[in-house]
Amino acid sequence: MKYNVAILGASGSVGLEIIKILEQRKFPINQLFLLASPKSVGKEILFQGTTHKIQLANEDIFHQCDIIFGAVNHELALHYAPMILKSKALFIDNSSAFRNQLNIPLVIPEINAQDIQKHHRIIANPNCSTIITLCAIYPIHQLSSIQKMIISTYQAVSGAGNQAIEELYEQNYQTLQNQEITPVIFPYPIAYNLISTIGEIKENGYTSEELKMQKESRRILHEPQLFINCTCIRVPIIRCHSISITLQTKDPLSYDEVSKAIQEKDYCLYYENKKNHISPMPLYASNQDLIHVGRLRKDISDECGFTLWCCGDQLRKGAALNAVQIAEAWIQLKHPQ
Amino acid sequence: MKYNVAILGASGSVGLEIIKILEQRKFPINQLFLLASPKSVGKEILFQGTTHKIQLANEDIFHQCDIIFGAVNHELALHYAPMILKSKALFIDNSSAFRNQLNIPLVIPEINAQDIQKHHRIIANPNCSTIITLCAIYPIHQLSSIQKMIISTYQAVSGAGNQAIEELYEQNYQTLQNQEITPVIFPYPIAYNLISTIGEIKENGYTSEELKMQKESRRILHEPQLFINCTCIRVPIIRCHSISITLQTKDPLSYDEVSKAIQEKDYCLYYENKKNHISPMPLYASNQDLIHVGRLRKDISDECGFTLWCCGDQLRKGAALNAVQIAEAWIQLKHPQ
Repeated sequence: MKYNVAILGASGSVGLEIIKILEQRKFPINQLFLLASPKSVGKEILFQGTTHKIQLANEDIFHQCDIIFGAVNHELALHYAPMILKSKALFIDNSSAFRNQLNIPLVIPEINAQDIQKHHRIIANPNCSTIITLCAIYPIHQLSSIQKMIISTYQAVSGAGNQAIEELYEQNYQTLQNQEITPVIFPYPIAYNLISTIGEIKENGYTSEELKMQKESRRILHEPQLFINCTCIRVPIIRCHSISITLQTKDPLSYDEVSKAIQEKDYCLYYENKKNHISPMPLYASNQDLIHVGRLRKDISDECGFTLWCCGDQLRKGAALNAVQIAEAWIQLKHPQ
Repeated sequence: MKYNVAILGASGSVGLEIIKILEQRKFPINQLFLLASPKSVGKEILFQGTTHKIQLANEDIFHQCDIIFGAVNHELALHYAPMILKSKALFIDNSSAFRNQLNIPLVIPEINAQDIQKHHRIIANPNCSTIITLCAIYPIHQLSSIQKMIISTYQAVSGAGNQAIEELYEQNYQTLQNQEITPVIFPYPIAYNLISTIGEIKENGYTSEELKMQKESRRILHEPQLFINCTCIRVPIIRCHSISITLQTKDPLSYDEVSKAIQEKDYCLYYENKKNHISPMPLYASNQDLIHVGRLRKDISDECGFTLWCCGDQLRKGAALNAVQIAEAWIQLKHPQ
């Protein structure tokens, strides 16, 4: 069986990555619609050897679709959702618009694929940092439930879109040339700097980006009592988020059982300690699907604690790949082989 | 009263910064000796309007000194220390050589200046990340003793010396020009990357750099039971280390008393939350003495917990300034005004 598929926001960084992944994974496509804003309409993108023109999104196209991948921002996702719901298509949305609606599944297929069955034609893709973190810690959570995590992120600029990548390259060039820097996408220079506020600061001092981690993880892991204290920092890296995690499990675990559990997951690439000092680095985890996990150690301050470090490409597993995997899992649930 | 002062390693990044700070703070100098390795001998450095030639270190010079600042590596510090001890000079050493020797004071003057009195002519300057972290959290520790900290660092390349700065600039240039990168100072590319192992990995999986934080903090705060779980990461930033800290105090504290305590310290620059979204950033904390502290919030996962973020210039307060302040405090203890 093949499906009619649309990508809403096909010319953006996540949209382009979805197209690449559908091709790489030989997703069963009958007809592909690439949809974007007026300024991208008419642009051509090659898919499986055939040129596809970007079109303006409209209800007629939605009615021809089985699956629509949303790769637009929060506002546009809210704008198009009612039109999509009038069709019969499944909407897999990558924005933050539906992540907190309890009747809409929030899914990482490796963890809670079964939640897909509860969908009402919208499924939300979690935040990129949440996906990368949960893939790294889920093998541990299966051994003994995680009670609490203290997290610090090192987030690449591509999380803020293609223009943010250009801005970093440009500012690096301007710094080398001793030219003045005028930030546009980020509020402050990002070259040779760290930006320590991502998103809006809330009443309790946490940013919206930081609070997502606890909210979303509780839903995905079905652990409403899980506490996550998160600090989100933007670093001058192109692609691939890195995350420093200290976690506390219900029962004490041994180093060996934890490292074995991570190694056994086919979605993790595990780095042993000591082996030539190589540990996960964002440069080497970019443009690939695996979550790189390493620097694992028993927390010297807590007998139920572990500390680890992970890197994941936030445009692939952190966004596009996870969305495509949701579609694959949905097909599998409809037509189990 | 004026002092004869020598700087051992005067041409390195910390040595040059010590010279700058001695001048800026009008340190009471009678005679200044700039000492370095053969390759720097003969180079001239301007100090208080007078040209000083760099000389080779030797015992004759040590014998003429009251204070010798060590700005060389661990091995050289161990090499010169016995010669210095034959003189009557005080050796304030910035390397890691003496930080763990319990009979040698390890001092941050704002915290444990009184430990200087116990010296036997060597005083150790703590690791840069330790100094920056402890300056940020000491105001909280004074309100209720800190039991535990979970720390992730974002360490600038200048922590690895002047050549590391050149390497980052060069690799950024090479990346922009699509040229191949050949790392020399760091084991992997640092441009557009994070290096997740600083120092040697020990038996328990922590690196030497990470273990310093607990060892040194226990000594400086006189808290042998303090637990610190640290993850040290190198980021592509020129100067200024940043640190994400989650801490647990003995008793619960209010947000207001904690923020007030930090604001009252003249060595901290405190950033209120919400104020135009400005929070501490390394680019703006470079080349200055203050420790920038912000993103303070009550830990959502712990009633005795706080999370905060700080940035400090590791060549100034993290190294050179702290060493000069130790000398000033030593003078003050000898000749209280």
